[in-house]
Amino acid sequence: MAITFQAPKGTRDFYPSDMAVRRYIEDIWRKVSIRHGFQEVDGPTFELLDLYKIKSGDEIVSQLFSFTDRGERKLALRPEFTPTLARMVAEKAAGLPRPIKWFSIPRCYRAEQPQKGRLREFIQWNVDFIGEASDRADRQCLAVCVDALLECGLTASDIRIGWNHRELLTKALTSTFVAPDRVSNAYYVLDRLQKYDLAARNALYQEQQCTPQEREHFESFARAFGVPGGNPVGIGDFAGNWPADVLKSIQVFELRLADTGLAELCRFDLSVVRGLAYYTGFVFEVMDAQGQNRAIAGGGRYDQLIEMFGGPAMPAVGFGMGDVVLEILLRERHKLPEKLMPVADVFVINALEDSAVADQLITQLRRSQWNAAHSVIIRPGLNVQTSYRGTRNIGKLLQEASGSGARIALILAPEEAGRGMLKLKNLADRSEMEIALSAVINRVHEILTK
Amino acid sequence: MAITFQAPKGTRDFYPSDMAVRRYIEDIWRKVSIRHGFQEVDGPTFELLDLYKIKSGDEIVSQLFSFTDRGERKLALRPEFTPTLARMVAEKAAGLPRPIKWFSIPRCYRAEQPQKGRLREFIQWNVDFIGEASDRADRQCLAVCVDALLECGLTASDIRIGWNHRELLTKALTSTFVAPDRVSNAYYVLDRLQKYDLAARNALYQEQQCTPQEREHFESFARAFGVPGGNPVGIGDFAGNWPADVLKSIQVFELRLADTGLAELCRFDLSVVRGLAYYTGFVFEVMDAQGQNRAIAGGGRYDQLIEMFGGPAMPAVGFGMGDVVLEILLRERHKLPEKLMPVADVFVINALEDSAVADQLITQLRRSQWNAAHSVIIRPGLNVQTSYRGTRNIGKLLQEASGSGARIALILAPEEAGRGMLKLKNLADRSEMEIALSAVINRVHEILTK
Repeated sequence: MAITFQAPKGTRDFYPSDMAVRRYIEDIWRKVSIRHGFQEVDGPTFELLDLYKIKSGDEIVSQLFSFTDRGERKLALRPEFTPTLARMVAEKAAGLPRPIKWFSIPRCYRAEQPQKGRLREFIQWNVDFIGEASDRADRQCLAVCVDALLECGLTASDIRIGWNHRELLTKALTSTFVAPDRVSNAYYVLDRLQKYDLAARNALYQEQQCTPQEREHFESFARAFGVPGGNPVGIGDFAGNWPADVLKSIQVFELRLADTGLAELCRFDLSVVRGLAYYTGFVFEVMDAQGQNRAIAGGGRYDQLIEMFGGPAMPAVGFGMGDVVLEILLRERHKLPEKLMPVADVFVINALEDSAVADQLITQLRRSQWNAAHSVIIRPGLNVQTSYRGTRNIGKLLQEASGSGARIALILAPEEAGRGMLKLKNLADRSEMEIALSAVINRVHEILTK
Repeated sequence: MAITFQAPKGTRDFYPSDMAVRRYIEDIWRKVSIRHGFQEVDGPTFELLDLYKIKSGDEIVSQLFSFTDRGERKLALRPEFTPTLARMVAEKAAGLPRPIKWFSIPRCYRAEQPQKGRLREFIQWNVDFIGEASDRADRQCLAVCVDALLECGLTASDIRIGWNHRELLTKALTSTFVAPDRVSNAYYVLDRLQKYDLAARNALYQEQQCTPQEREHFESFARAFGVPGGNPVGIGDFAGNWPADVLKSIQVFELRLADTGLAELCRFDLSVVRGLAYYTGFVFEVMDAQGQNRAIAGGGRYDQLIEMFGGPAMPAVGFGMGDVVLEILLRERHKLPEKLMPVADVFVINALEDSAVADQLITQLRRSQWNAAHSVIIRPGLNVQTSYRGTRNIGKLLQEASGSGARIALILAPEEAGRGMLKLKNLADRSEMEIALSAVINRVHEILTK
């Protein structure tokens, strides 16, 4: 008895209709990246295990799928692209034209328990702008992200983008209630406030040895932050105590976001802190405006990372967007186009006894972009389909032709073929005409380009 | 001191120019598959280790990168796509429309010693036609393969395709010198004749317990086969002894190949046996016509495989083509287009003190396909680039604009901007004009669509 197998836990099979959705999303990512002047890169699917410890420490190892090669080197499937990016930049930094504007669409892997929106294998769009320290690069990254979301049909009622700035926030914190040597503790706490209830927060304060004054301030943040996905948290109550230059910088950045067409979706949001320790300035997060799903994308400035991987000191900003949550959101909001699968241009119906003429015709149609003699041909090779049912019943074959999505059916039948002719049926308007075999390619292209 | 890392042995980093080549090849594979009516699919990058033993036995395990997940399940990175394909078909066979015409472009992995044309990580195009037993499906697969190679610019002086047919060959062998119970031994020997010298062949005959009569026949094959990549081996000397119906079938298939436009590149070739045990009928191999590289692609009919994976009995035929050897060949024969990287449409030069106007303009140009009010706009969002050099020297910025490949430079300078105008420079013909900021989007699209 044959054993039946399934896809491993946390992975996906992409049947044609699933693949069409994946291609739709990937094509938008690629198209938008390119029109913003980013160039595509990729790296190996696995790296030396140690590469992943540089940024994330030893704790990352338990979340990796790791293995050894024949040379007993320890390798791991990539959980994210940033370490590969940093390695690639560090390796060739001297020879790369600046600024470096790269994007990639790698498959990534996490050895975690699968949940809604979080799988063991997923695809993550990465956009990184390296070598430019100004906030123009921050806004450029944000603009690519927003354009892709708009291109997917998402609007302000679907998504909300919160931004923050670690450098500005650090200034505000240290000028109000956080001692300079307590900044990293403060970020550790801030990142958790929204997810923890009061008891958990108290334990957190204890663990981080917070002063009574710190506790008091964090609790006022916690009240403002509310629950994840709630309203954006402006400076509001805190503004009175914040340094004027910090407030001014936030205001200027908001104005510039408006110039870049981003004001409608993006708001300063104090609750967006981003957990990762390596962010150094601007940070942002794309959230479900209805608060039901995990974060859709997130990123920020990481000016010290390239150096950590052995490269020169290079400012950098970037973000990642996974396919899993985005696809869930697009399905929930009915934003996926109905017809994503490629359809046939032409369906050839062969009611002749022999396949020779049909085979020749199909081949010519599929290769027809190479026919340079006919200046009317402006479309590349046609998508041509035919039946494998072994029937010569034209009625049944016309049904199959309609199902293929083709706009044109070409019918090879004995009577017409004897006169060097065939029947062309326009499946859109149901009109029919008889046309010479020798003229069919041009006629088909004319109809399709109308 | 920072440690520097490199890509793991046998894997590749894809910097922008490498990625452009990869995309060029993948796009041709995808485009050609679709116009032949195949639908794209994909599966997980890793499967349960046992899945790979079904087709290839326990020996495959040493060639796999394998690991365990948290549930102690044994997993392996896919060395090829066929087991995933067979699993996916077997799992949903009842619900899939027939015939099943699928293609995929997966990354695959082999834990082998890397060599020229053979890496540990590679990309393999797979095309499979399932549910159709006739030789129309065989030719359909061959036609997709040939069309992709033609689309890459390869000709009969670059590649040669040999085909053979296991069922016909088995008939010929058993009607001449091979006993029915010795057929699999005969294939084992035939597959190795071309690669072995006389001493190795003698050892092979001994190992396979060949009769003197078998040895004699195999030696005459070996003389005909010559060296790998030599001339195609027709039936020639053997024809006299072969059954008439076998000879007739070969002749008929050759005629049909001509109808499908494949005669120029494809020849019956007795030396193409294909090592894998699971082929049941038609087999073919694409070779470097100058004999320098490994096989470029290969495949054939495997009518029993779906059943081995727990599915219903379903005839099937397919082939695989890797990216590594193809890319080597395209480079060696100078067939890669010179310009593969996407280039800018428009380069915006900002010589104003403030970035607001430039930012607005860039955003409008990139999103300009959403501006439905202007019917002249037929191109989607433009590829717009700008400088990050922090200079307002127009001469230097024009140099950068030329380097970007853009056809148009838009120059924002104080004098013109004060009058609501900007300068448009056509970088192709060096002409310049002044135009109103409000009219620029239409004008740019007009120039680009000329």
